[in-house]
Amino acid sequence: MKEVFGSPGKVSGLALRIGQCSFAAASIGVMVSAHGFFNSTAFCYLIASMGLQVLWSLGLACLDLHALRSKRSLQNPVLVSLFVVGDWVTAILSLAAACSSAGVTVLYSRDLNYCGPPAQLPCSRFQIAVAFAFISWFLLAVSSIVMFWLLGAV
Amino acid sequence: MKEVFGSPGKVSGLALRIGQCSFAAASIGVMVSAHGFFNSTAFCYLIASMGLQVLWSLGLACLDLHALRSKRSLQNPVLVSLFVVGDWVTAILSLAAACSSAGVTVLYSRDLNYCGPPAQLPCSRFQIAVAFAFISWFLLAVSSIVMFWLLGAV
Repeated sequence: MKEVFGSPGKVSGLALRIGQCSFAAASIGVMVSAHGFFNSTAFCYLIASMGLQVLWSLGLACLDLHALRSKRSLQNPVLVSLFVVGDWVTAILSLAAACSSAGVTVLYSRDLNYCGPPAQLPCSRFQIAVAFAFISWFLLAVSSIVMFWLLGAV
Repeated sequence: MKEVFGSPGKVSGLALRIGQCSFAAASIGVMVSAHGFFNSTAFCYLIASMGLQVLWSLGLACLDLHALRSKRSLQNPVLVSLFVVGDWVTAILSLAAACSSAGVTVLYSRDLNYCGPPAQLPCSRFQIAVAFAFISWFLLAVSSIVMFWLLGAV
């Protein structure tokens, strides 16, 4: 089995998982703090999808930490297949959530002008939440590609 | 080099490319025929992204057809690397376009109720265009995974 950046049970893999988890949690926090987010289905879906990503990344971060402490290898074909499927499903859901929220944010801020009076939606918060979601997705995409590569090399 | 479903220079690969191209073209056609689509940045981005996908898939369909007629193999590492990069970039852009348009369509039809009077937006056309974009993306995703798999097996 190859040793590449971000593979499971390595410090780089653990750092990627912690990054994914933190940015997804930050995205949820910023979105929940923006009033009126529940009027848009896309923003509610962003929160649900980032919640799933927090759970998945936190679980894998704990597994990586355990493997690092007990110096075990997580790189067996069954585990890697499981990581690949989970990572890819989560990554596609996260990208879908980030993009649909970005579409709605652009519609609010540029096309409908809901950010100024009288609607006064907190568009800057929506933008920050979407940006965090994209960063979290990017980190997850790195993990996914590494996992798929490892699976191909099994 | 492995022979898998959808690999370049095969009939299955050609069928996938023709499917991608047709559904992307259908998505553009339905979206352009819906009045008021230019008011949303996401819908304009969908047209641009589907246009890129039509060009890319049509080009590769021609290449596959040429390879089938002249019985040449397209499976050398340099060509497959090129296909992988192009397929992945196009697939991510298409998914982003489809999801952002889906977010805006759901916002129009469920959250803002712009489909009825007085706005009377043609929401069913938006939905059909988004559905075609998702089908086109799915076919492109199949091609992308096959290409990545072939690259890993080089």
